[in-house]
Amino acid sequence: MSLLVAGTVAIDDVKTPQAEEKQLLGGSAAYAAIAASFFHKPVELVGVIGNDFPEAHTSLLESKGINLDGLEQVEDESFHWSGEYFENMNRRETLSVSLNVLENWQPKVHETGREAEMIVLANMSPENQLTTLDQCDSPHFVIADTMDLWIDIAQDKLHEVMQRIDLLVLNDGEAMQFTGTNNLIEAGEILQKKGPGHVIIKLGEHGSFLFGDDHREFFRCAAYPLKEVFDPTGAGDSFLGAMAGYLVHHGATKPNYEDMRQAVVRGSIMASFTCEAFSTKRLAEVTPDEFEDRLAELRELIRF
Amino acid sequence: MSLLVAGTVAIDDVKTPQAEEKQLLGGSAAYAAIAASFFHKPVELVGVIGNDFPEAHTSLLESKGINLDGLEQVEDESFHWSGEYFENMNRRETLSVSLNVLENWQPKVHETGREAEMIVLANMSPENQLTTLDQCDSPHFVIADTMDLWIDIAQDKLHEVMQRIDLLVLNDGEAMQFTGTNNLIEAGEILQKKGPGHVIIKLGEHGSFLFGDDHREFFRCAAYPLKEVFDPTGAGDSFLGAMAGYLVHHGATKPNYEDMRQAVVRGSIMASFTCEAFSTKRLAEVTPDEFEDRLAELRELIRF
Repeated sequence: MSLLVAGTVAIDDVKTPQAEEKQLLGGSAAYAAIAASFFHKPVELVGVIGNDFPEAHTSLLESKGINLDGLEQVEDESFHWSGEYFENMNRRETLSVSLNVLENWQPKVHETGREAEMIVLANMSPENQLTTLDQCDSPHFVIADTMDLWIDIAQDKLHEVMQRIDLLVLNDGEAMQFTGTNNLIEAGEILQKKGPGHVIIKLGEHGSFLFGDDHREFFRCAAYPLKEVFDPTGAGDSFLGAMAGYLVHHGATKPNYEDMRQAVVRGSIMASFTCEAFSTKRLAEVTPDEFEDRLAELRELIRF
Repeated sequence: MSLLVAGTVAIDDVKTPQAEEKQLLGGSAAYAAIAASFFHKPVELVGVIGNDFPEAHTSLLESKGINLDGLEQVEDESFHWSGEYFENMNRRETLSVSLNVLENWQPKVHETGREAEMIVLANMSPENQLTTLDQCDSPHFVIADTMDLWIDIAQDKLHEVMQRIDLLVLNDGEAMQFTGTNNLIEAGEILQKKGPGHVIIKLGEHGSFLFGDDHREFFRCAAYPLKEVFDPTGAGDSFLGAMAGYLVHHGATKPNYEDMRQAVVRGSIMASFTCEAFSTKRLAEVTPDEFEDRLAELRELIRF
């Protein structure tokens, strides 16, 4: 049973009200792959970097059991994102984006990647999500993330993606933008009718909604509460990756609704760790004990 | 064991994207008292109305087992609120407020009210909350609500209130305004240090946080999800009232943390009904079976 994560691998500069750091490991696939590797190794990574990509970052990925055969390196600068967070850490402003290597990139899935049953199409253009999927030989379960940009400029391709996936993950603002309704329950149901059997709407610090195949299959997951959110970059990607890793670890490449619920909770817990430090620093160091403690705390937190 | 609800009793005009209605029963104490009466009768009401107050509204209150001995009627117009909700039903604009009878009102607690052990100080000026409390002979548990206005203009009095209550209930925006932090977990802890043993921060459609005596006493309550929110006016007041009614019904006028958790869930469920129609129309008609069904649904919704 194997797991492929495709998406962006980036160099990030991040500024928060507390601190600022440059040349950080970033990108949707980097976060998702590390999160997945907590549960299952190896993770097959598909992405692209430039010749300026810090070796420390590739070493970190390798040390987590991530196979880099599908991480293409080209003669250009790496994808570079720079962003700032304000008072309320839910508000983020992108200061600059340089696509660089991403500009003309077409994902090429390596041999061991093609065999994966669990496919994570982390945030990248819907076109690249489709190109990735075209090269997968036997996907059992496909998870895709997206963002406001693609809903704006590539909605047709996004609809194609939605016909071919089992789970779409997006945040509340994106769900409202995509469906034109402000009611998230209605939004989830509309999105599900567009194709995917499952839809997750993420609510940031307020957790997430999982909409399942059946209208009665509906799960409200709380977020693990954090007294200090240091840097939420990549929390959503970690959520996605942890879900996928958890499902593969449990042999659930055709997950039922119970599997999905459990996976969402793991995603939520993993995202909470990501928020506690810049980049993947906290994420990459989570221990099984720490993870289980938070899981138990969350269970106790919502019990009634 | 008896229960007092003090606060405003109003005539409301409400406009939503779907509809508009005038001369509705409104006011913090009206909603809270009806919600409380679902669990426990009689409810002792303290408030003030004018000579224009529709008899249909007082009849409704009486029919719910609410004792109106403490509902003063004076020669003036009733407190009148007019508001409008926009696309996202969480955004509300007050179109007009006429204090009228409220202007010079000082709560006078009637004889059976003074004996109450459970006191609900629904939203009104902190000064009137204190005046009410001064007249109570043996309060065991005091719940107070507040709003942005009092945090703005009457913070000293509000601090006095907080020294004398067991539970403060406010929404997320108010909690941030009051404490100057955008982190709700931190905000809850700061508020608790100001006096009340318990603090609830309401998150609208996202549920609520309960902060207890001990830092480990922390509860994340989900909201019952509504596909259509018709009119959220009074949802918070219903939450408060239902909590208090539930606690009295269970003989928990000195509730422990388990009692509190259970009460919060009842408040959350009751608030969901209030949102489904104008004014107290849905709230006043909730049946025990409907209530138990939603409770079971919520339990299932969050289970993992």
